[in-house]
Amino acid sequence: MNRMVDLVADVGEGFGDYRISDDASLLELVSSANVACGFHAGDPRIMDTTVARCIAQGVSIGAHPGFPDLVGFGRRAMDLTAEEVRTDVLYQIGALSAFVRSRGATLAHVAPHGRLGNLSWTKPSYADAIADAVLAFDPSLIVLSQEGELARAARERGLKVGILGIGDRAYRDDGTLVPRTEHGAVIHDPQEVAARTVRMVTEGLIESVSGTDLPVTVDTVLLHGDNPAALTVARQVRSELEVAGVEIRPVAAILKSRAQVHS
Amino acid sequence: MNRMVDLVADVGEGFGDYRISDDASLLELVSSANVACGFHAGDPRIMDTTVARCIAQGVSIGAHPGFPDLVGFGRRAMDLTAEEVRTDVLYQIGALSAFVRSRGATLAHVAPHGRLGNLSWTKPSYADAIADAVLAFDPSLIVLSQEGELARAARERGLKVGILGIGDRAYRDDGTLVPRTEHGAVIHDPQEVAARTVRMVTEGLIESVSGTDLPVTVDTVLLHGDNPAALTVARQVRSELEVAGVEIRPVAAILKSRAQVHS
Amino acid sequence: MNRMVDLVADVGEGFGDYRISDDASLLELVSSANVACGFHAGDPRIMDTTVARCIAQGVSIGAHPGFPDLVGFGRRAMDLTAEEVRTDVLYQIGALSAFVRSRGATLAHVAPHGRLGNLSWTKPSYADAIADAVLAFDPSLIVLSQEGELARAARERGLKVGILGIGDRAYRDDGTLVPRTEHGAVIHDPQEVAARTVRMVTEGLIESVSGTDLPVTVDTVLLHGDNPAALTVARQVRSELEVAGVEIRPVAAILKSRAQVHS
Amino acid sequence: MNRMVDLVADVGEGFGDYRISDDASLLELVSSANVACGFHAGDPRIMDTTVARCIAQGVSIGAHPGFPDLVGFGRRAMDLTAEEVRTDVLYQIGALSAFVRSRGATLAHVAPHGRLGNLSWTKPSYADAIADAVLAFDPSLIVLSQEGELARAARERGLKVGILGIGDRAYRDDGTLVPRTEHGAVIHDPQEVAARTVRMVTEGLIESVSGTDLPVTVDTVLLHGDNPAALTVARQVRSELEVAGVEIRPVAAILKSRAQVHS
Repeated sequence: MNRMVDLVADVGEGFGDYRISDDASLLELVSSANVACGFHAGDPRIMDTTVARCIAQGVSIGAHPGFPDLVGFGRRAMDLTAEEVRTDVLYQIGALSAFVRSRGATLAHVAPHGRLGNLSWTKPSYADAIADAVLAFDPSLIVLSQEGELARAARERGLKVGILGIGDRAYRDDGTLVPRTEHGAVIHDPQEVAARTVRMVTEGLIESVSGTDLPVTVDTVLLHGDNPAALTVARQVRSELEVAGVEIRPVAAILKSRAQVHS
Repeated sequence: MNRMVDLVADVGEGFGDYRISDDASLLELVSSANVACGFHAGDPRIMDTTVARCIAQGVSIGAHPGFPDLVGFGRRAMDLTAEEVRTDVLYQIGALSAFVRSRGATLAHVAPHGRLGNLSWTKPSYADAIADAVLAFDPSLIVLSQEGELARAARERGLKVGILGIGDRAYRDDGTLVPRTEHGAVIHDPQEVAARTVRMVTEGLIESVSGTDLPVTVDTVLLHGDNPAALTVARQVRSELEVAGVEIRPVAAILKSRAQVHS
Repeated sequence: MNRMVDLVADVGEGFGDYRISDDASLLELVSSANVACGFHAGDPRIMDTTVARCIAQGVSIGAHPGFPDLVGFGRRAMDLTAEEVRTDVLYQIGALSAFVRSRGATLAHVAPHGRLGNLSWTKPSYADAIADAVLAFDPSLIVLSQEGELARAARERGLKVGILGIGDRAYRDDGTLVPRTEHGAVIHDPQEVAARTVRMVTEGLIESVSGTDLPVTVDTVLLHGDNPAALTVARQVRSELEVAGVEIRPVAAILKSRAQVHS
Repeated sequence: MNRMVDLVADVGEGFGDYRISDDASLLELVSSANVACGFHAGDPRIMDTTVARCIAQGVSIGAHPGFPDLVGFGRRAMDLTAEEVRTDVLYQIGALSAFVRSRGATLAHVAPHGRLGNLSWTKPSYADAIADAVLAFDPSLIVLSQEGELARAARERGLKVGILGIGDRAYRDDGTLVPRTEHGAVIHDPQEVAARTVRMVTEGLIESVSGTDLPVTVDTVLLHGDNPAALTVARQVRSELEVAGVEIRPVAAILKSRAQVHS
């Protein structure tokens, strides 16, 4: 039953002259940002500009490493060795952190992108490889993830984990997401998304596709901004959370507050 | 008149299954290494392995950022803005430093690769952009360069500069290198390269193509290893320096010793 | 004094999920299209879809090869050898032609993109390399170019040349374009662009920045579509040409008609 | 029971300054070559040079399209849609055919590379997509494949199929290869590889790992050249085939001869 939650969005996912979402609008709504690192999207100029914008807006910065597949936007599964996942992730965290450090800020979290992220929730070798990379780079970094293999691997290494809630996606009874390829996977109605998000955060419950109430712990809520409709939903979610008295704070503050409650 | 000098070589310049030089042999000869960062050569696995080898051999590690041109090996001039150079270099330093940091070591220097390096010696906007990137990432990093614009830009920002001497290249009277496209630009005879290097280091003199003795200050000597003949030359250079009583030490030690002499 | 002219636009310049111009609207306005080939923009899916759209709209198809620089959109000068230019262009023409051929259509022309295009108008080695690639692939292909080195190189090899007129760019007295970096290089007023284009086509004259009337022969007029304002200009140009009684036909028809007049 | 067979090898698999096999030696041994097309390996210069060498040696030329994964050398599985496979393959065939056409030669076959090739033997959607690309580009092209999905898809479309035999790989009882990850998958003894190859070609039989004699029809035998030992094996195979009275001819000649026998 939180009185505070983090809001996070994927930003900096353009490339060269290409842009794919309205980052300026998104950064007004969120407390944390997943910044693309150049493998699935992003380039050095966009990374630098995006980091500068996050700092200017007081948004906490995370690395958003993906598969090395620009043309596929990191959404296509690739069969990598654990060493390939670990070193690809380490490379991307390092590259992004250079921009963060060069502006006197601090990298706060790591959240794997797209198919790499999805696979990290279910595939132990990918989960362990990502957690190894984070641990080796900086053990104070928070790992953003749904419950699953990545959260397990991070906790085993003593890393902090911020659990991700997704208000516009249908959940199955086991707490995993209904795949996008299935009917009803994505919820489009802004009012419904906002209501589900508020309940997830304030009551710790989400209704699954079978109508069951699942207990969930949500530290951070993912907002989308890749089209005008998504931004409308995002604004509604933020607004309803505020109406419900939920404070929006970066994930580090959420975890700190939770730790104090438990101690 | 040095009694010590750094020996440096470019390493980690393979990609995927490709290899281009005998890094294991080179790392036995040098005190510092310029490690490719993924733009002109290198990939996350090779960077990780190369960093591990440097640490195992006690070789000091530097970043070797290049133009974003893998097929051209960073040897083709590209007309970039200063912002493009600055952010490309920052990205590459950050990526490499993640591997160094993950193994508990420290990045010591930055030496731009190939055409980016050549242009940085003569083109003020590239020199300033590279120096800005180094300064923003870590002001304690040493910039390796010939005398020229990059050395000027680095000194203006209070960065330490290690001056590079190249024993197997002909010098013009103004202290710049004879371009590779001109006859006599590269000296192939191992005995001659070794003799020029020893004189450069111990007497501070190099004979130009016109037969004039130029005064030079050399902190680090570049060795090549991209073919068996180059390795033979490299071994000869190291051996003759040792015979002449010159101690081989990483560039940071060279600069520290020089600073003590001057103070 | 033409009674017919070709209208051409750059299309298919997205990548992966990224899009940069409104191709559907542009293809309603033009008689020819320059299709990106995967080096500066474009990917196999976009190329296939774009070719299919061109065929459906009856738009004549040309290859639009660029520098191998996706992040720079082919707008940054690269210092390539003639062999590199020739083989990069041949590769791109071949790749695009596979999609054209697979749908039973025929590739009509080649128009180099961005900085490669600009350099081909002034740099003999690039011009000769591009013309060599076109000749080797298919001597019946038309080369689209401004007057300059590429037109010269193409004519020397017996290739047909379609001369490009640009209504929204200022011309210098020698018939070259005022560079984009100079004030007044681009004309934004739709009415003025349309009037200049009509005069260029129907009277064979364009007023230079110094106020001099330059004689020009224009086979094809370049339209832009990378923003809504550009599309408005493009529509105005087409509309005014039609009002002036100019027929819009693919460049092959223009050259054929010109040849009949001369014979 | 053939008295003739094709010998084929993968060539042109370098990139930029990188080389990975001794193409000059391989091209003296084979009658056909699979030429890399720039996605998993190869670049425009290497493709042009390789095609020129094949023509000079009288070696028949085929396209060797792979996954878009240069750093992984096309050896890592990627989860693509059928449209992505079809268009990636079409792009690569077109690019290579430009070099073949520019030198007045004709492309003879298509053989998918690495993991794309392996998957095409077992995954119907990949097999159909590749066969669709070949059919759309040129229905006279031969598809090189083991028996399996790709051979099925090609035959269904009326394409000619050249069946690939691999003398240095262990076969399972169902005629598929023992995966490289399993013990005994690769046979290293030159004498044994040569003997198996000769028997495969002249008797149409290969002994499986269980000791069973499997009937096989082999039109073309794959030789490797990525290390000196592989070249020794390749020379032995060619030599023993010649001693056994088998004529080495390009795959088109093999299929033509087989068709005449059957008619």
